[in-house]
Amino acid sequence: MASTLQETTERAGSNRDLGLIDRKSMIHPFTPLRTFSDGETGGPVVVDRGSGAWIETADGRRLLDGFAGLYCVNIGYGRPEMAEAIAAQAGKLAYYHAYAGHTSEPAALLAERILEMAPANMRRVFFGLSGSDANDTQVKLVWFYNNILGRPTKKKIIARERGYHGATVMASSLTGMRFYHEGFDAPSGPVLHTTVPHHYWGAEPGMDEAGFVAKCVADLEALIAREGADTIAAFIGEPVLGTGGLIPPPAGYWPAIQAVLRRHDILLIADEVVCGFGRVGHNFGCDAYGIEPDLITVAKGLTSAYLPLSAAIVGERVWSVLEQSSDARGPFAHGYTYSAHPTCAAAGLANLDVIARENLIERVAEFAPQFQAAFQDAFAGHPHVGEVRGTGMLAAIEFVADRDSKRRFDLSEKIGARLSAAALEGGLITRSMPHGDILGFAPPLVIDTNDLDFMIEKTKSAIASVFPGV
Amino acid sequence: MASTLQETTERAGSNRDLGLIDRKSMIHPFTPLRTFSDGETGGPVVVDRGSGAWIETADGRRLLDGFAGLYCVNIGYGRPEMAEAIAAQAGKLAYYHAYAGHTSEPAALLAERILEMAPANMRRVFFGLSGSDANDTQVKLVWFYNNILGRPTKKKIIARERGYHGATVMASSLTGMRFYHEGFDAPSGPVLHTTVPHHYWGAEPGMDEAGFVAKCVADLEALIAREGADTIAAFIGEPVLGTGGLIPPPAGYWPAIQAVLRRHDILLIADEVVCGFGRVGHNFGCDAYGIEPDLITVAKGLTSAYLPLSAAIVGERVWSVLEQSSDARGPFAHGYTYSAHPTCAAAGLANLDVIARENLIERVAEFAPQFQAAFQDAFAGHPHVGEVRGTGMLAAIEFVADRDSKRRFDLSEKIGARLSAAALEGGLITRSMPHGDILGFAPPLVIDTNDLDFMIEKTKSAIASVFPGV
Ligand SMILES: Cc1ncc(COP(=O)(O)O)c(C=O)c1O
Ligand SMILES: Cc1ncc(COP(=O)(O)O)c(C=O)c1O
Repeated sequence: MASTLQETTERAGSNRDLGLIDRKSMIHPFTPLRTFSDGETGGPVVVDRGSGAWIETADGRRLLDGFAGLYCVNIGYGRPEMAEAIAAQAGKLAYYHAYAGHTSEPAALLAERILEMAPANMRRVFFGLSGSDANDTQVKLVWFYNNILGRPTKKKIIARERGYHGATVMASSLTGMRFYHEGFDAPSGPVLHTTVPHHYWGAEPGMDEAGFVAKCVADLEALIAREGADTIAAFIGEPVLGTGGLIPPPAGYWPAIQAVLRRHDILLIADEVVCGFGRVGHNFGCDAYGIEPDLITVAKGLTSAYLPLSAAIVGERVWSVLEQSSDARGPFAHGYTYSAHPTCAAAGLANLDVIARENLIERVAEFAPQFQAAFQDAFAGHPHVGEVRGTGMLAAIEFVADRDSKRRFDLSEKIGARLSAAALEGGLITRSMPHGDILGFAPPLVIDTNDLDFMIEKTKSAIASVFPGV
Repeated sequence: MASTLQETTERAGSNRDLGLIDRKSMIHPFTPLRTFSDGETGGPVVVDRGSGAWIETADGRRLLDGFAGLYCVNIGYGRPEMAEAIAAQAGKLAYYHAYAGHTSEPAALLAERILEMAPANMRRVFFGLSGSDANDTQVKLVWFYNNILGRPTKKKIIARERGYHGATVMASSLTGMRFYHEGFDAPSGPVLHTTVPHHYWGAEPGMDEAGFVAKCVADLEALIAREGADTIAAFIGEPVLGTGGLIPPPAGYWPAIQAVLRRHDILLIADEVVCGFGRVGHNFGCDAYGIEPDLITVAKGLTSAYLPLSAAIVGERVWSVLEQSSDARGPFAHGYTYSAHPTCAAAGLANLDVIARENLIERVAEFAPQFQAAFQDAFAGHPHVGEVRGTGMLAAIEFVADRDSKRRFDLSEKIGARLSAAALEGGLITRSMPHGDILGFAPPLVIDTNDLDFMIEKTKSAIASVFPGV
């Protein structure tokens, strides 16, 4: 029997142009459709292999991946123990469904493992594939919860400006950025957006962090008063804002927000898709900021992206209501064909094994001060840098035309995109964050000091090339 | 370095009760929450391994999987070539993202391969993970399309009663069954449902198939007239209704429906999650029924469930509009972190290789008459069987209390669930379909005549045990 890999390779043999095949076949996320398709913008970049924090393209470039894919390849590329665990499960039982009380060993063990790592009040795990579908699960759960409690009008979800929660119709509605909404009729459904807790842009002149937190709280209170607490089911937020710009919350933000939510009986969904499993030096972002959520969404770090897997983790408050009502309501009528996929769960277990064996979360906590200081030292003084910020192994440099007035660059200058393109020239992948001229860094948690030095050096050169003579 | 699998096994060692772990950690789809959690309903069933059409549970039972997981394991369980292809890609490059024009060899090749198999007017592939997320992509695409065309009010989606389209907030809204909506505030968003094309239940007395198709068409016309064609963006339907009861369309249904949609400039989304890649003896269900869709959703059969993967396939009509507008609109602002996941794409390629190498689609076309006849011969005459129906390798037996009056059994009798439980006792997995007393069959496409005989025999015994003396 001919090997599949061989057939595939033959199909892609030297006579065939993989780039052309790709351009004529695939729609890529966040890629211009016509110019990419016609080859005008160049590309695709065919990524061929990876090892540690480095990837290699089909045309032989070696690149340091300063953004770990989409901040998800936390344990780094090319781990043989991951491929082995995946192969073992795929060979034994690649798939069976989890409907009607069916399970597999890796799925059951992974669910238990997630609860062991999660805050103490977490009770059950519902598996999906993507951060988006897990957030859809959360929304369905909070609606279900309020229907059970006889509060049919308590259904709106408050999300935050510049929050990112995914790409399904509902998840993209929760997302609080204009360019994810435009053309797609989002927000669709009962979604509201409140103030983004970004002191640098949001604080009034002279306002300190405490004052700014008070403003965020007042804005939230005003929104709740306007809409009526009895119409609001839940608040969703990332412990550290991710795609919106890698923005750690100002001190005291989460306890203050939580107090408001409790007073109005509004559930708190912590979207830990980026923070979960070590990115900020704790199991969860919640642990870093004293957040006591009712529901937690996880994805990326759960498998380090080796295979797709997400979960909605359900806390005591919601679980006890669901459980008690279930005798009357019958089977829980929600599920994806691939919920609790055994091979994906095996990848999750193997990934958490790597994290535990190598103490990666403690390592982030230890390495973070050096990591953050390196960015501060290198970039905070640059005349076009408005803010250098970060926590754990998330860092961002935000560029402005003028530091004092905080005047932004004109969008047409595409400063962010030019900076990340220049860094790429030097062999470093960074992410030009979609909102503003922000260069984002979220490397695999396993980078060493040499990698860090490389990141800093190449970023310096990129900045020098975009702002010559500054 | 300790092997991951070994650690996992130790964790699950003989002292630990995997069932208890599962019950106390996981929320399962379509499982009663409290009674399962407390162990009252028994379970979980721990599935341990699989080979061909058979699975084995951890407690040593061997079961013929007459429903191929959730009609997805089309090439059967335990294929070494699948595990090899998955392992090879996971070892080389498990993951890189597909944003901003990045790709991987398997993703590009699979996109091309899908277009080669799809109807001729299909142009591009957008990858997701689940049937649900791909349907969310379709809805976003049709909204985007109409916004580009300057028709901001042409946004409603017509789905069908008893259609099944998934479990995100949007996909479950498209789904047309009460019990998927109850408690979850679905349909949420601008979704309408039209008549299910099921002649057995829907036709008026004496109405033949042609008359019933005319009724379906009239109902659709009336709905469009009531709402206004300028408010309706798309119609979504499964070529053969799946979860709603495995219902092939009456002759002439699709051409007649299509004519209406064309007249009103309404896009047609074919949800091929079940039919796609061979289940009905054609590449797609569309090929079987002369459907010319604008958009096609695929999932399950694309990888035979070995790994999660779905796609929204975009036809000429929508693609040309998206493409032309893209210079003005910038990058396409939709995507999932795991869109075009390289390892999942490698599983897709390997799966399509198996299907091609073993001529599985032709095999279904050849085997189907025997498969369908076996069900007709064995069950059509039973006094409690209202209808035996199917196509390709989909078959359903619908039970009624009284054949002549078509009186249904009382729900509380749980006839469907009792029948599938009885079959399970005999070693056969069937699916008690959620809507009505319907026993569903959709085995792996590789079953042989012995397997078919086993299915028929065990189903006969199950029926005899539920209806003794009949
Ligand atoms: C915080 C957060 N939530 C949800 C998502 C959506 O996850 P996915 O892309 O897997 O759907 C993301 C993705 O970046 C995210 O950062
Ligand atoms: C026709 C159809 N569409 C969509 C879906 C949803 O797919 P998934 O469960 O992968 O989200 C299903 C699942 O059974 C289906 O049968």
